[in-house]
Amino acid sequence: MIPNWILQRSTLTPEQVAVSFEGQSWTYKEINDLALRYASKLEALGIKAHDRVAIFATSTPQIIFMICGCMHLQCEMVLLNLRLSKTELAYQIQDSEAVAILVEDELLNKLPETASPIHSFSKVSDVSAIAFTPTDEWDENDTMTIMYTSGTTGFPKGVRQTVGNHVSSATSSLYNTGLVEDDTWLCTVPLFHISGFSMLCKCLLHGVRLELLKKFDVEKVVDFLVDGTVTRMSVVAFTLERILTELEHRDVYVSDKFQTMLAGGGPVPIDYLKRAIKRHIQISQTYGMTETSSQTATLSSKDALRKIGSAGKPLFFNQIRIENAKAPFEQGEILIRGKHVTPGYVGRFSDKPSQQDGWLHSGDIGYFDDEGYLFVVDRRSDLIISGGENIYPAEIENVLTSHPSVREVGVCGVEDDKWGQVPNAFVVLNNNVEVNELLVYCKEHLAGYKVPNKIYIVDELPRNGSNKLLRRKLKELI
Amino acid sequence: MIPNWILQRSTLTPEQVAVSFEGQSWTYKEINDLALRYASKLEALGIKAHDRVAIFATSTPQIIFMICGCMHLQCEMVLLNLRLSKTELAYQIQDSEAVAILVEDELLNKLPETASPIHSFSKVSDVSAIAFTPTDEWDENDTMTIMYTSGTTGFPKGVRQTVGNHVSSATSSLYNTGLVEDDTWLCTVPLFHISGFSMLCKCLLHGVRLELLKKFDVEKVVDFLVDGTVTRMSVVAFTLERILTELEHRDVYVSDKFQTMLAGGGPVPIDYLKRAIKRHIQISQTYGMTETSSQTATLSSKDALRKIGSAGKPLFFNQIRIENAKAPFEQGEILIRGKHVTPGYVGRFSDKPSQQDGWLHSGDIGYFDDEGYLFVVDRRSDLIISGGENIYPAEIENVLTSHPSVREVGVCGVEDDKWGQVPNAFVVLNNNVEVNELLVYCKEHLAGYKVPNKIYIVDELPRNGSNKLLRRKLKELI
Repeated sequence: MIPNWILQRSTLTPEQVAVSFEGQSWTYKEINDLALRYASKLEALGIKAHDRVAIFATSTPQIIFMICGCMHLQCEMVLLNLRLSKTELAYQIQDSEAVAILVEDELLNKLPETASPIHSFSKVSDVSAIAFTPTDEWDENDTMTIMYTSGTTGFPKGVRQTVGNHVSSATSSLYNTGLVEDDTWLCTVPLFHISGFSMLCKCLLHGVRLELLKKFDVEKVVDFLVDGTVTRMSVVAFTLERILTELEHRDVYVSDKFQTMLAGGGPVPIDYLKRAIKRHIQISQTYGMTETSSQTATLSSKDALRKIGSAGKPLFFNQIRIENAKAPFEQGEILIRGKHVTPGYVGRFSDKPSQQDGWLHSGDIGYFDDEGYLFVVDRRSDLIISGGENIYPAEIENVLTSHPSVREVGVCGVEDDKWGQVPNAFVVLNNNVEVNELLVYCKEHLAGYKVPNKIYIVDELPRNGSNKLLRRKLKELI
Repeated sequence: MIPNWILQRSTLTPEQVAVSFEGQSWTYKEINDLALRYASKLEALGIKAHDRVAIFATSTPQIIFMICGCMHLQCEMVLLNLRLSKTELAYQIQDSEAVAILVEDELLNKLPETASPIHSFSKVSDVSAIAFTPTDEWDENDTMTIMYTSGTTGFPKGVRQTVGNHVSSATSSLYNTGLVEDDTWLCTVPLFHISGFSMLCKCLLHGVRLELLKKFDVEKVVDFLVDGTVTRMSVVAFTLERILTELEHRDVYVSDKFQTMLAGGGPVPIDYLKRAIKRHIQISQTYGMTETSSQTATLSSKDALRKIGSAGKPLFFNQIRIENAKAPFEQGEILIRGKHVTPGYVGRFSDKPSQQDGWLHSGDIGYFDDEGYLFVVDRRSDLIISGGENIYPAEIENVLTSHPSVREVGVCGVEDDKWGQVPNAFVVLNNNVEVNELLVYCKEHLAGYKVPNKIYIVDELPRNGSNKLLRRKLKELI
């Protein structure tokens, strides 16, 4: 059992600022008071303790109040990605069997029709509060959040993250990065992603401030970095590059109050690291995934240049090993163990074990060097990472295959200057169809970032002896 | 399951200094190598994994190597207090059923004869190492340490502290005090006490340095505080006062690298706090006990003057409540809950539950004020704290009662300029005996600090209606 975070923070550090947004701030006591009111209103709407609810909202304080209200009710929160198509949203809502959908008013028209009742934020707000008493403690094994990651089968899997998973992740992170007085995390990543949600958890647990931006805005970010408003933030290579360019353009440096920038979503180019050092930024490269409730390995800034391309070492309460590797540099699947690892999935995949003998099989290929530094070779076998978003080829293949004129499809990632990678599709046709019609079809069924950048019509797809599609050979067809 | 601390630290931060002592230092890799060798030698001496062993040694690196060797072997360590008499040592060794006693060579003649084989440190060192492979993980429920606290019955109780207890304590402490680069704990308190052992745990877990002193030496301590060698330390009012006097005498200030001084063992006088502020020392008053594996509540330095006499608020993963209290300022027994609370005792008290409905009954009386700050009124009902050592009156009463000329005994603490408190005894005689003979008798059976400062011969002892001794009325007899 673990003390109810929101209550505990409100008891221990009531006057400490918890959240800031566009110049307005809320203390831990205010967050708790708001969360209690929201919990009460949700209960008045028929949502019971431990119910599973979906949340669909942008990064404003409203979603934080709603999340904290759901925490008080110990609800399982299905956090819906804002970039999903209606078809994808419908799948996740139905698969998770959410009893209700809490949605920001402006996003009401983006929701598909499902059996789950929809409560807009203003509707929740307008309900009269009823008597509500939160529980003092939470069970570590209770599911707190559910986030869908695209599975290799093409059907997204609803990954459960428990109270204990989030606590272990935040604690491991603290053992790794330390904690200084007046620490403040700058959040420019979505709260529905594990990157953003884990930042919120760290703030609630460590009692520090979250400076929230509705979206990544390079000018505001650089203002905060330079004037010392924030001490930590998370970036991907793409956003780091924009920050560096802005700092260079203004010819300014980050404040000496600034501690660390965590860089995830793949290795950071050496050129960026050198430019970052010149601007007084310490970069810690990280490796993690939804199934590990955020970071599982981190390269300290001290080693950043010496170990280019490495994801560093496991966090303290983690163990990482390479399957079947007997010596340094031997490659194999990356296996992960620790209290931050998901216990499993919901819905269609609820019977699928997330671990084998206590180890999560990441699907990623990597190795350790002779000093124990982890290198991730392939970020999952065929995963495409586009602007920080994970895209699994099979999901796009499933959509295109469902078009009547298409017989076979293969999708792979192609390097792109702006997004890192973009998906390209290769189709074998049943009968004549315009490429443009296929693109329109994709746009109807997929989030914009998953729509193939190019669709090539080919005679056949590369396959191995067992007729398994060889995605890595697709690029040779271009 | 939790990663083996020693292995994990050696993997993650091999070159970081773990321990310094009299100008010499050992890195985490060196500590691990030594600990593996010691574990192997202990195994060669017939000590098996999970065996219970007693350790009797002063605060030098040797005891740390031995402790870390025992950790690799997952032994349960009975940490023997250096100030115990042979009778007391024999009781603890027999009660705990230790399979062996590991003793510093210089202390061999202090040990009583018991059935447990004795291995001096040099004997362990001289044994040839055999092949030894440590386990990667430790079970959180495994007992790591056993420390005896004098019980109210007069029979010391062997308190178990598990791997999970120590991790929870170190983690809660980190959430409370933060962690800065190059943090260093100065340890001047015994490692066999929870105050010292928990400091060692924090260093091993957080990967920071322990600067070890064999005993409290005010000149060395002040040197370290002034030159920035250490960033944190633990004090009691008595040692704090000596540090302040030395700083004032030299007219110097502590380095701005210094973070926090944790002050335990009872409230710190306001005058000391004001003097500390003048010397740039931040004091965090704490409340804790062997059963809570160290701190359970802490008053932040910000509140030090505003909340004089308070033990502050619970640490993050703790809960504290006052039994039957319905409003602020209502007094009652202090109840404590959390993963840092002992699961129970060994030996004679192994059947005695340490908790009721999941709450530890501290035996201490306290209250919360209207802002949620804890005030400890009586540090346990009749506990005497002398120079930082806990003395339970019943233990001394048991010894004196066993003298043939003594009929009844009552013991209480009396204020003392040097030690804070010293025990005084009040005896009702059966037949004539010199006070001096009684004092000699006490010295034979009790650690020096437990021997009564004065023994008064009286006609009768104050008792209540049920004939229960009223210890707090004893002082009126002086």
